[in-house]
Order: sequence, then C-alpha cells, then structure tokens
Amino acid sequence: MISDLVKNIEPFYVMDILERAKQLENQGRDIIHFEVGEPDFNTPEEICSAAVKWIEKGYTKYTSSLGINELRQSIAEDYSNTYGVEVGYERVIVTIGSSSALLLAMLTILNPGDEILITDPHYACYPQIISVARGVTKKIPVCESDGYKIDPAEVRKNIGKKTKAILVNSPANPTGAVIDTDVLCELSEMGLFVISDEIYHGLVYGTRVNSILEFTDKAIAINGFAKLYSMTGWRLGYMIVPQELVRYVQKLQQNLFISAGSFVQKAGIDAIEKVKKSAKIKTIVAEFDKRREEMIKGLSSIGFNIVVEPKGAFYVFVNSSRWSQDSWRLAFDILENCHVGVTPGIDFSDRGKDYLRFSYATSIDSIREGVRRLGEFLG
Amino acid sequence: MISDLVKNIEPFYVMDILERAKQLENQGRDIIHFEVGEPDFNTPEEICSAAVKWIEKGYTKYTSSLGINELRQSIAEDYSNTYGVEVGYERVIVTIGSSSALLLAMLTILNPGDEILITDPHYACYPQIISVARGVTKKIPVCESDGYKIDPAEVRKNIGKKTKAILVNSPANPTGAVIDTDVLCELSEMGLFVISDEIYHGLVYGTRVNSILEFTDKAIAINGFAKLYSMTGWRLGYMIVPQELVRYVQKLQQNLFISAGSFVQKAGIDAIEKVKKSAKIKTIVAEFDKRREEMIKGLSSIGFNIVVEPKGAFYVFVNSSRWSQDSWRLAFDILENCHVGVTPGIDFSDRGKDYLRFSYATSIDSIREGVRRLGEFLG
Repeated sequence: MISDLVKNIEPFYVMDILERAKQLENQGRDIIHFEVGEPDFNTPEEICSAAVKWIEKGYTKYTSSLGINELRQSIAEDYSNTYGVEVGYERVIVTIGSSSALLLAMLTILNPGDEILITDPHYACYPQIISVARGVTKKIPVCESDGYKIDPAEVRKNIGKKTKAILVNSPANPTGAVIDTDVLCELSEMGLFVISDEIYHGLVYGTRVNSILEFTDKAIAINGFAKLYSMTGWRLGYMIVPQELVRYVQKLQQNLFISAGSFVQKAGIDAIEKVKKSAKIKTIVAEFDKRREEMIKGLSSIGFNIVVEPKGAFYVFVNSSRWSQDSWRLAFDILENCHVGVTPGIDFSDRGKDYLRFSYATSIDSIREGVRRLGEFLG
Repeated sequence: MISDLVKNIEPFYVMDILERAKQLENQGRDIIHFEVGEPDFNTPEEICSAAVKWIEKGYTKYTSSLGINELRQSIAEDYSNTYGVEVGYERVIVTIGSSSALLLAMLTILNPGDEILITDPHYACYPQIISVARGVTKKIPVCESDGYKIDPAEVRKNIGKKTKAILVNSPANPTGAVIDTDVLCELSEMGLFVISDEIYHGLVYGTRVNSILEFTDKAIAINGFAKLYSMTGWRLGYMIVPQELVRYVQKLQQNLFISAGSFVQKAGIDAIEKVKKSAKIKTIVAEFDKRREEMIKGLSSIGFNIVVEPKGAFYVFVNSSRWSQDSWRLAFDILENCHVGVTPGIDFSDRGKDYLRFSYATSIDSIREGVRRLGEFLG
C-alpha cells in the first residue's frame, strides 16, 4: 500500500529534538531555541493590516493561477530595484510558499533519472523534493575551512550526461554562506540550467548577494515572503521563470494547487511596497546582524572554531567533533542537560555527523543565555 | 529543458473561456458566469473574524506539519457527528487545500506505473495529479442515461495486476452525481484501496452522502473548506488516512509544503464550530438547492434533456449534441453571442465533446437571465 518513494524519505532529525524540547517545556523547563528555522519577529503590522482589510472586503476567492498581477508587478519591480535586472511581471508566478515553487520547478524540468547538482551540506528538503520529481541528487561537497565556498572546478567534474541543472542557495541554509559574485557568474556559464533558491535574500550582513538573474535567464529564481518578512505561517512564495516555461508551470499550478491564497497575496503587495521600501526592513536586518555577531562571538568563546564568519540567513553551521563524533547524540545531550535546542548536522549533510546548526533567529538575551549554558555543559 | 510530464499536461479549456469572458467584461459586457467552480457567497463572517483575531494576536508562524491539534480534533468530531464514524484526530492531516492532499495521497500509495481507476467524466485535475505521481489513470465510463452511476461490475472488469486504488468523488464534479450507499459499500469491498474526494460533502439536496470511512479504513478521505464554507481563496484542506500512513504523509508534507497556513487553520476551527454547527449552513445549502432547481427547470425549458436530476455539488452536466458535436466551439459561440460562460465537457471527459457543464454557484437572477439568453441563442 505504501510507495517506495515515501518509504525512502528521510526523517527530519530536528523534529525529534523539537518534540522533546516541547515535552520539556510542558514540564515547566525554560528552553532556549537555537534549532528553529523561522524568525521570532511578528509579521510587520503593515502586512497584517493589509490581510485584515482584504478579508473584510471579501477578497477570499481563487485568484489567477499565476497570481494577482499587482503582486507579480511588485515582485518584478523589487527584483529590478534590488538587482538591476529587468524581469517582466509575466515571468513571475506566485506560489503557496517557496516550497511548492521548488516542487513546480523540479517537475517542470526533470525527466525521471535526470540529475540535479546540490551542495553538501544543503537544505534538508532538496533531495526529497528532487526525488518526488523522480530526479537524482548529486552532491558537491563544500567545506567549512573555506567558508563553504562552491568550487566551480568540482562542479564541472560532476557534470555528466544526465545532469540537468544545478540548485544553488545563497545565503544558504544551514551554512549561512553567500556565494561570491564571480562564482555565481561562473556557475551560470557552465551550460547548466540553474535553480536559485533566493529565500534568504535580504538577510545579508556586510556583503551583497546576487540574484542568478543578473547572470543568466536560463534559470529559475525561487523566493518568498517567509524569512525576510517573518511570514512563515502565511504560505506565500514565488518563482521567476524563463518566458517559455511560464505556460508549463501554469498548467502544473492549475492542476496541483489552483492558486496561492487571495488576501495573503494582497498582503504580499504591502510587504514589498510598505515594509521593504521603508526603514523598517533595515531595522530588522540590523537586529539579525547584531544577533549574528553575538552568536559567533559566544560560540567562539566556548571553543567552537568558526573559520569563516557566515554572512547571511540566520545560521551558524560549525564542527562539533571536539565534543562528539555523533552530533545527533550530542544535540540530545545538550537539550537534556542544559535545555538548549540545536540542530544536528545530519539533517543537512551526509558528512554532517559532527556538525551542529545554530539558528540566531532569537533574541540577544536568549543567545547569551543559551551560549552560557552550552559553555557550562561542554566545559 | 522541459520535462515530458509538463509537455503532456492537458490545458484547462475552461480557462480560455474565462479569459475571453474577462476580456468581454473589460469591454463593458455583462457576462453571466455558469463556468466557475466556486461559490459566489462571501466567506461567513464568523470565519473571517477568527482569521482577523489570530492575525492580530500574531499567530503567523509555521504550525506542526500535521496541523493544529485543535483543528484536527474539530475535523475528527465533525466526521463523527456527520457520518457516525470514529476517527481519531491523529489520523487527520491538515493540508494546503484539498488539491495538495490529493497529491500527497497519490505520492504516498503509487509506485511508477501503478494504476488508479477513476470515472469518466471526472474532475479535470485527477489524471494530471496521478501523472505527477507517475501513476496511470484508467477510466470507467459512467453515463448520463442512468445519472452517472458507477457500475461495480464495470469496475471489477477493469481491475488488473497494476490496479492500486480507485478514486471516487461524491458528490461529483462535473456531474453533481451522488454515489448510492450500496454502490459505495460494494466499491469498498473489492480489495482496492479507496481514495475518496469528499470536497463537495455537505452540498447535497434531498439525499444523504456517505463518507468512505463508513465502510472501510483502507481508504483516504480528502476534504476541505473551499466549497461548503466559500473559502476557495484560503487554501485549507485535509485528509484522513489510515493510522499506518500518517508518518509517511507527514514526512512528505514536511518536505514538500512544511505546513498549512497558521491563522487560516484557526479560522477553520470556527468554520466547523460556529458555521457548520449553526443554522447558517442550512441557509447556504437551501439557497444552493433553490438555484439547482432553477437551473434544472431553466435548462429543461430550453431543450436540454436532464435525464436524472443531479443531487449534489453545484453543477449540471448535460448533453448538448442537439446543437453541436463540438462543445468547445459551442461554448465559445455561446459566450460571444449571448455573453454566458459555460464549461466545455472535454475538460472532464474523453467522451465529453458534446457535453456542457453549468455551474449554479450564482444568484437565482443570474441563472434566470443566463437561461433566457441561452434559450434565445439556441432557439
């Protein structure tokens, strides 16, 4: 009764951590959360009021499968303002979160057995989404020692007959690494189709991040509102695709998802027009940067060796083999002993058994207290 | 660059109609819409206020991938109250619309090449969702002459080695047919896994509809809030699965969609607790029934031969060969000449070339005016 596909899907190990953390919280323990991948900020009020306004206006029906034109135009204009690329709004397709955009992208380009290159470590879900589209994941190792840089020579070596595309993620989950301009440019010139997961764009500190669309149109850029605007529970994302793919993605969307939420899309317009264009977004990013510095300083002070500072997203991914060769075990020991949730590296990497991911999407005070507890426990 | 999958996806012919209808509207024409598959009612205010309340409370983050427990419990209790079946809430998984529940169901049970039986006519998206899961659709013809009844003998004849499941939809889109109790019972006893799309449940007139869960637990019931509660643009659905499948579906959901919307799920609780349990839902259903009678009476009066009255959903699917052997052409002629949108049968059926679908999810006045125009044109 059960398909081979779901039998082979990897569990999220962090979910076991989260569940145990919740048990402990229910028992009255005070847990510090470094394991979660979502901002702790409230969704900005401008966005909330827009949703409320449109619900009250009765804007609650299906929309066009491609999304509301006004939102598509805001997104296109935002890409133009941010990256200097002209993207016709006709190429923007609004989706239910960036996750479903990733699935639509894979289904649109992959035939069974086609290969996609990704980095190792990588966002936990990539191989599963690729396998749902019956593609094959091929991993390019990137190393802590040089800040998880992608080596274009290594990519070239791995291109075979079945290689259809490369999937890049900058800033990256779990490493926080931002791909250098020259590397992204080089990747775009290898004759491969590029899928660029740009969901952490905007969350960069002291550096600039490029959109793949600055270098090539033979690419799909995937993005969404969850991370930058603290809208994880709204389920709103989008993809910018080559003009000749629009109709294919649209047919898939019509059949699989119909459309993204209606008033949620209206709220997305205000996210771009009222939040991104205001000083508010700078305040949010500045706060993340402070937290980043606090986390890096704190982890370094208790013995973690952060070789290259991560410059984006809200994660630090660091070797923990000094304390244990089994970071899944170590994550549980940390949780049980000092009530700090951290994510074991195996969620993101075949080679991640002695790595931990620390999310700094939490307050400075929590970061200080969590690091203090970790320092005491790890000794 | 383009996968065979998307190359082979059928377009929605009705979308061409809709697009042209919108063009005509923009030119100032008054269009009557019998082509749309969504209720014209506003989402009930109890549901809207719940969403507003939870947005304002900042309930805007990811939820558990299975959904909020309180909503899962309301759904389980609703199935118990409505069908007398005890469904533990642990078996309820909240999804982003019932569309994604269908996809999750297919991915969970199908290996490449496995067959799924569906009726012909059928909801337009079924074969495409099945093909995304690399399954094969096998169609069982049902006929207007006996009210689109499924003949169990015909189903049995079509069961082969590769047949994994039957997908039923009662009340059905596009026919409005409700499967008789004894037929559904018989279908559940064929040794096939049953996927039951129950999205139009609640919208039945002068009859009762059964949930598949009254007859077997070797089934997935799929349902949602879009149709009964006029919540199409909210993207909220659910599936009730056998206990042993929960973990598999959950892993898929975590990887593909993360979770359904947060405040949207909270609003779903009020849909069940405040709307379904109040007199309000009866008023809505009574209004649909009046529209149904008006549409049937009207279409009959202008020469359509409605052999068996449809008892559910909000559609009438009827032969139009008296006027044309090509209902796609006919639908365009109707739109251009009398400004009434109707859906051509080919969207739902290989044999649907001389059928039209009329949706009565519109006001009595619109139904009267639309039928009047049709009568004039068809003569």
